[in-house]
Amino acid sequence: MEFQIDATSQGARACTIKTAHSTILTPVFMPVGTQGTVKALDANDMLELGAKIILGNTYHLYLRPTSKLIKKFGGLHGFSKFPNSFLTDSGGFQAFSLSDNSKPDENGIMFKSHIDGSKHYFTPKSVLDTQYELNSDIMMILDDLVALPNTDERIKKSIERTTKWAKEAIDYHMEQKSKGIGTHQNIFAIIQGGTSKEFRKLSAQQLCDMSDFDGFAIGGLSVGEPNQDMYDTVEWTTQFMPKEKPRYLMGVGTPEDLIENIERGVDMFDCVMPTRNARNGTLFTTFGKLNIKKAQFKEDDKPIDACCECYTCKNFTRAYLNHLLRAGEITYFRLASIHNIHYYLDLMRKAREAILIDNWEEFKKEFYTKRSK
Amino acid sequence: MEFQIDATSQGARACTIKTAHSTILTPVFMPVGTQGTVKALDANDMLELGAKIILGNTYHLYLRPTSKLIKKFGGLHGFSKFPNSFLTDSGGFQAFSLSDNSKPDENGIMFKSHIDGSKHYFTPKSVLDTQYELNSDIMMILDDLVALPNTDERIKKSIERTTKWAKEAIDYHMEQKSKGIGTHQNIFAIIQGGTSKEFRKLSAQQLCDMSDFDGFAIGGLSVGEPNQDMYDTVEWTTQFMPKEKPRYLMGVGTPEDLIENIERGVDMFDCVMPTRNARNGTLFTTFGKLNIKKAQFKEDDKPIDACCECYTCKNFTRAYLNHLLRAGEITYFRLASIHNIHYYLDLMRKAREAILIDNWEEFKKEFYTKRSK
Repeated sequence: MEFQIDATSQGARACTIKTAHSTILTPVFMPVGTQGTVKALDANDMLELGAKIILGNTYHLYLRPTSKLIKKFGGLHGFSKFPNSFLTDSGGFQAFSLSDNSKPDENGIMFKSHIDGSKHYFTPKSVLDTQYELNSDIMMILDDLVALPNTDERIKKSIERTTKWAKEAIDYHMEQKSKGIGTHQNIFAIIQGGTSKEFRKLSAQQLCDMSDFDGFAIGGLSVGEPNQDMYDTVEWTTQFMPKEKPRYLMGVGTPEDLIENIERGVDMFDCVMPTRNARNGTLFTTFGKLNIKKAQFKEDDKPIDACCECYTCKNFTRAYLNHLLRAGEITYFRLASIHNIHYYLDLMRKAREAILIDNWEEFKKEFYTKRSK
Repeated sequence: MEFQIDATSQGARACTIKTAHSTILTPVFMPVGTQGTVKALDANDMLELGAKIILGNTYHLYLRPTSKLIKKFGGLHGFSKFPNSFLTDSGGFQAFSLSDNSKPDENGIMFKSHIDGSKHYFTPKSVLDTQYELNSDIMMILDDLVALPNTDERIKKSIERTTKWAKEAIDYHMEQKSKGIGTHQNIFAIIQGGTSKEFRKLSAQQLCDMSDFDGFAIGGLSVGEPNQDMYDTVEWTTQFMPKEKPRYLMGVGTPEDLIENIERGVDMFDCVMPTRNARNGTLFTTFGKLNIKKAQFKEDDKPIDACCECYTCKNFTRAYLNHLLRAGEITYFRLASIHNIHYYLDLMRKAREAILIDNWEEFKKEFYTKRSK
């Protein structure tokens, strides 16, 4: 992975990341394609939207269609036909989101498949083996993520485990690379520590000392804590992260969350929000969110967002989308998802432009002013 | 509507129909867009597929979003953004398919809305008023359709009512046209009569005597009778239909049904089969149907149909589609629907080519030979 900082503005960074499959300009939002597709869309839709990197979920893909099968098709790129970069998570987040069916111990996480109940033990090494098969451009280490609020004891255990697993992961990856496996794949560690300054500092220092990692993520946020705590934790944590490597805030968030965290030095984001919200009727616009299902849009002949140049806004009215959603037409899901992803990607493009001309403060002010109208 | 016969071959006809919105080459299959969209697809998808006419359901659109609303958007073309032709049915078929919530009498059909239980009385005139609002290019008359098998008495009543309603409809339409309403819209009558030669002849003669109709449909088939009875009924009925007007076989059918009925002189077809089957996993190919969900396709790196040039076949493998369907990904529905509609439209294009060069017998033989392999 090549990485360079192109510009900074008020703490916000504009960087360039080059992987084997694409050049990624940051700040970047990575749409989530859990099961090998971004929901309701296909590879060409993502290319049309200008996505240079999307996320796949290791846990889901390992179970179905299996990473072994995906490997036969040339990895995620060959299987899904999306030619740009993939980042794959490790399953650590699923241990949290599917906690009824998972149990971490000192050496890994035991999962009970949500598909057929079969048991699968994920270790720091096994999740890399899976990600080698998926052939993702950026692999995440297995981490031990905890819900917030939580006890100091549990958070401490989380960072201890995560550091131990990170060491195992990076040693294994360097060994594999020396054997010619995953040589073009990159690996990121994940900083844990809840919202505690002390724990975040400790986790960041321990992980960032392992200089073979290609980038560092902040994990374990956006899991129930107040927004301001998330912002404060990110602001605190980034100071312990190396400037010369990408910084990725996992699972975040709203457009406001992105703006606030870009300002705090984050380069990369992912979240199911644009696609999940689209399916529920919540659409993002320059002027804030709207619920397209509302009666007020029934006869509205305007596009979702007058400022938007996405396929959906260029072609269809709010009234038509309101009808499709109310009538239960599948067509709605694609059109709404295209719009919301375009909104997120375009916001990142505009943020980058502002950073490049050192105009962050003005950009941020305008972002909030339009939304309060 | 302009209509001309371009060529015939073994009873099969290749015709050209010009409406205010498109030039339609026959034989033509009209994809079904019940609620203002072909399920899982949008207007541009239909254009990409080369569809010159799609079908909308008057009953559904009248209830939601209402034909009044659609009129405000410039009819179905303005509302859905599909610029080519629309044919709208009358609600007569819904009296059959939603028979628990409908009751015909001598003057029309009482419907209980499947959405909110409200009552709506459809008459020969009211369904035209609705279709004027929808601004469809081809409007169908209200007909009284019965399930098969049925009693002679009930079938007789069905053709009596249908003739009476047809007379009311054509008189009303001529009157409305003289007032400048629906002047570019065309109206088709619907022949009923079950599988009885006597009743079909009677119905065809009564309706075809009303020379102001722009075309004639054969209705009330594909409702439970054996396939051969349908073919025999069509063969018998077409001899009583004028050569110089389009012939439309409603709600039919499988690829084999289309081939058999083209040979019997039918020009137009519609059916939910390609889209509904797509959603269930049944995909049409040159070599017959396949169920993409089957385990045998899990690792199949071939396209659905090696002979197919649709978007889906050019881009994605059977393995990927198998995975998307099994994983419950919405993306699957669009890709599968594109393929199946392409299959139907392409079959019609090839049928037309064969008719134009008077090669029907050879074409039909090849169609069946490939499927039996």
